[in-house]
Amino acid sequence: MPTIDGPRVVADLKRLAEFGRYKTGVHRPTYSPVDVESRQWLAEKFREAGLDPVIDGIGNVIGCNPSAGRRLLVGSHSETQPYGGWLDGSLGVIYALELARAFAADPGCAGLGIEVAAWADEEGHYGNMLGSRSFTDALPEDEIDRIRGRDDGTPLREALRRAGFAGRPRERVDPRHYVGYLEAHIEQGDTLDTTGLRIGVVETIVGIWNYRVSVIGEQNHAGTTRMVRRKEAGVAMVRLASRIHDRFPEIAGPRTVWTIGRMLIEPNAPSVIPGHAEMQVQFRDADPERLALFEKTLQELVGEARRAGPCHVEIEPIGRSEPRPMDPGFQAQIEAAAQRQAPGMHMRLPSAAGHDAAVLSYRMPAGMMFIPSLGGISHHWSEDSKEEDIVLGAQVFADAAERILRAT
Amino acid sequence: MPTIDGPRVVADLKRLAEFGRYKTGVHRPTYSPVDVESRQWLAEKFREAGLDPVIDGIGNVIGCNPSAGRRLLVGSHSETQPYGGWLDGSLGVIYALELARAFAADPGCAGLGIEVAAWADEEGHYGNMLGSRSFTDALPEDEIDRIRGRDDGTPLREALRRAGFAGRPRERVDPRHYVGYLEAHIEQGDTLDTTGLRIGVVETIVGIWNYRVSVIGEQNHAGTTRMVRRKEAGVAMVRLASRIHDRFPEIAGPRTVWTIGRMLIEPNAPSVIPGHAEMQVQFRDADPERLALFEKTLQELVGEARRAGPCHVEIEPIGRSEPRPMDPGFQAQIEAAAQRQAPGMHMRLPSAAGHDAAVLSYRMPAGMMFIPSLGGISHHWSEDSKEEDIVLGAQVFADAAERILRAT
Repeated sequence: MPTIDGPRVVADLKRLAEFGRYKTGVHRPTYSPVDVESRQWLAEKFREAGLDPVIDGIGNVIGCNPSAGRRLLVGSHSETQPYGGWLDGSLGVIYALELARAFAADPGCAGLGIEVAAWADEEGHYGNMLGSRSFTDALPEDEIDRIRGRDDGTPLREALRRAGFAGRPRERVDPRHYVGYLEAHIEQGDTLDTTGLRIGVVETIVGIWNYRVSVIGEQNHAGTTRMVRRKEAGVAMVRLASRIHDRFPEIAGPRTVWTIGRMLIEPNAPSVIPGHAEMQVQFRDADPERLALFEKTLQELVGEARRAGPCHVEIEPIGRSEPRPMDPGFQAQIEAAAQRQAPGMHMRLPSAAGHDAAVLSYRMPAGMMFIPSLGGISHHWSEDSKEEDIVLGAQVFADAAERILRAT
Repeated sequence: MPTIDGPRVVADLKRLAEFGRYKTGVHRPTYSPVDVESRQWLAEKFREAGLDPVIDGIGNVIGCNPSAGRRLLVGSHSETQPYGGWLDGSLGVIYALELARAFAADPGCAGLGIEVAAWADEEGHYGNMLGSRSFTDALPEDEIDRIRGRDDGTPLREALRRAGFAGRPRERVDPRHYVGYLEAHIEQGDTLDTTGLRIGVVETIVGIWNYRVSVIGEQNHAGTTRMVRRKEAGVAMVRLASRIHDRFPEIAGPRTVWTIGRMLIEPNAPSVIPGHAEMQVQFRDADPERLALFEKTLQELVGEARRAGPCHVEIEPIGRSEPRPMDPGFQAQIEAAAQRQAPGMHMRLPSAAGHDAAVLSYRMPAGMMFIPSLGGISHHWSEDSKEEDIVLGAQVFADAAERILRAT
């Protein structure tokens, strides 16, 4: 069995967290200067591990394995949310690096090929899982032409140019080369933390459906415009948002979640009646029928708001990812590895977050493993996990990877 | 009677609108390069009119009158709202310039002194009526130290330095020199436009009370955080805003207005539960008791939201201007002038917008005159008035100024 070096895993995670350190977390948006530096550092680490690294035209760092046999692709994403956590995707990237080293160091693993990926922009600073979609042929050039950064509107082409990635070829998967894809991640939720268990075996990655709701009113002076003749986009938006928060609990399943994480009103000045408002409404569930019911309900609420007037209300879907079951064989191997390393301390659970594994699962068998998140906190700089869980997770992950490679 | 030159008034308004032209309106925030250029242009026009211009340490352009007698101070502000209208405060500034020229040209007006002011930042890009407050000794140095721009947080000191105004003395009023202050402005509301009347005599400038409401929740992942353990600042804010919009109509007077013009949620990302949210709540009325009732009600609603949990909600007043009645004698003189120039086409009305005249009214008698706003639109680039109303207004204004100066 390949044996991981726990202190080395922790040291590499800490080194990677230096790129964009913010308090105890990390601020490393995709294609920012620190993100580019961290990808160059990762490429060098992949090289030291005996892999042949390439940073491709979308920013993916792929440590290709020169061995001839079929390989297991292992990885995660390396950028972070704004002022996000130090583990998140970085955990899976450093685990993957450690697996490459541990397999290379173990003569018993000769012929078992590990290939490593640090995907770009899973966190959506520019698009939706750009790196893994690019790798799986699901990111057309004209989409790249259109995408702009969610914060400052920088065109993706310009961001790639500044990063030095423009003009490079984009690496594309040849599924025949791979046994499958394996990804480790912090749970991000609190299921493992509150139950005291240490390893999660992911059964399904939930579907995430996102909508942009726009309200068009009439911008005017906040003093001189009488109440009866106002068309206040902000009022229409908060009333609709309140209705959504009232109605969704009535149709939710036990694990459905919904969020309005983004709201804008224009011109956003205290003495001006907002003429335009916008919000993004998102919900997640593992059950496609539940997702469809949520969409139908949201459409109804938007229709009611439009008919109530005086503002015009529009809704536009901006993403509907399907729930993705993980490969049952991979689930069984991760579970067996967890049972050997931490008997009785593991469970199966869905992933309520989206992951690159969902994208890869369209092209090859895919599996995911979680370690606990302290307090279930994630996408915040205070995100953390116990060091003993980080080290245990790496060993379970290596064990699972060996089982998967030997089983196929 | 001093006679104004209508085409000259319109031409000067159009020239001033070139500084920061945006579509048919103007984008000229206080202390921006175009604002500084426009103030230099105004100073030159004041000089041509026989005045002695100074741009002071807060950016006020004052055309001092070298004549010895008591003078009438006339003016308004010259910056605009973001992508705002071409008239707004500029109308009152160019009217004031025209009065200086018309009085100087009329031998019958010898000894009737017109002094002209273009105030800085009435529109609040940095603070609250900075220019007129500075002139009336109501803007302490330590407030200037603290103020930052509302859009990009630039310190006011830095903005003044970039504008070239830092280090200049601030002009201060000596009320003994003045008969009073007179200001013209577009109405901004639609009262004149819908009644077909052409001149408004302002009775009172409403009180404007502003509050910052902050919501503190817990930032977390929008997928992995179960609904029951969320503390969503955005949800608490939209629910409270909806309650405010439900409750305020029940206690409103016929002319009360209220607005939530500014809302922010953090980090404002689609897949992150907002941990912090903030909104500004504003209401206006001419009746101090009504304003107090609105404040009490708002405090109650915030208290209910805080007790409902799970987020913490705070409220902080950020401005409570008193309603300011205009001088009754000035009202009578403006009305008499309107009756001569446009018999039966004028009315008395309150101003639902704040104006520099409210600030000046603490130190000297003050009066205000309105001309109609097409469709009641203001604080938007499409704001406009009929040219015949612009010309008529200038003549009524000159007539009223002469009456006021002769009456005292």
